[in-house]
Amino acid sequence: MKSATTQPVGAPASLKAQMQRGDLFVEQCPSREVLKHVTSRWGVLVLVALSDGSSRFSELRRKVAGVSEKMLAQTLQWLEGDGLVLRTAYPVVPPHVSYSLTPLGQAASQHVQTLADWIESNLPAMLQARVERGETLAGPG
Amino acid sequence: MKSATTQPVGAPASLKAQMQRGDLFVEQCPSREVLKHVTSRWGVLVLVALSDGSSRFSELRRKVAGVSEKMLAQTLQWLEGDGLVLRTAYPVVPPHVSYSLTPLGQAASQHVQTLADWIESNLPAMLQARVERGETLAGPG
Repeated sequence: MKSATTQPVGAPASLKAQMQRGDLFVEQCPSREVLKHVTSRWGVLVLVALSDGSSRFSELRRKVAGVSEKMLAQTLQWLEGDGLVLRTAYPVVPPHVSYSLTPLGQAASQHVQTLADWIESNLPAMLQARVERGETLAGPG
Repeated sequence: MKSATTQPVGAPASLKAQMQRGDLFVEQCPSREVLKHVTSRWGVLVLVALSDGSSRFSELRRKVAGVSEKMLAQTLQWLEGDGLVLRTAYPVVPPHVSYSLTPLGQAASQHVQTLADWIESNLPAMLQARVERGETLAGPG
């Protein structure tokens, strides 16, 4: 993604090229789906929350304040589908399921965490920018 | 964001603490709004596209394949509101408006680009994970 010009506009990369490397600037590239999962509001927070180690669903839900049961389940499913999160069900009574990061997920988590740290550290400067523009908080949907 | 335990669950940071540093694990922290803007599908691509230098609206729209006029305008407005993007209107006829990254936006863009590069490079491994799970592509909304 060094440049947006590696791919002619509208021409999707061949499957072979996609299997070698994605291109987020190409509309049909499946990397866009992964980007959606990893950078979704809850995706980011789940990836960071799991960096401390494996966690049960209810623990995760407490950590990631504000997430609904449905959205947490969906987010975990996306990340599991991308090979970033491992779901382990222990054959005990009562059932015990835990979630952890795969090695791939650990790498993703680190990058997401760097971005999250940067946002947290620079929040004052960004809030200041808003104050100067006289704007209220307004977010996407 | 080194740990999710810096803040008791449900207790929002004081305004003073927020002015020093955000906490994405706190539901009411405004850092969550910034996260939404920066990591939205189009936010990521706009931040990366602008890393090459300033750009006009129509150029950006071509680069970021698939974005609608409305969503691009909205995304630019969010990023402008967070102090990450600078909108410059030149008093000429016909009107000429260009968008560029502020110094804060350049830093954000770098972090986002690192994550985007990682996703592109690791796409094959993630697609492989999907194939192994026998799943089809399914994304949020």
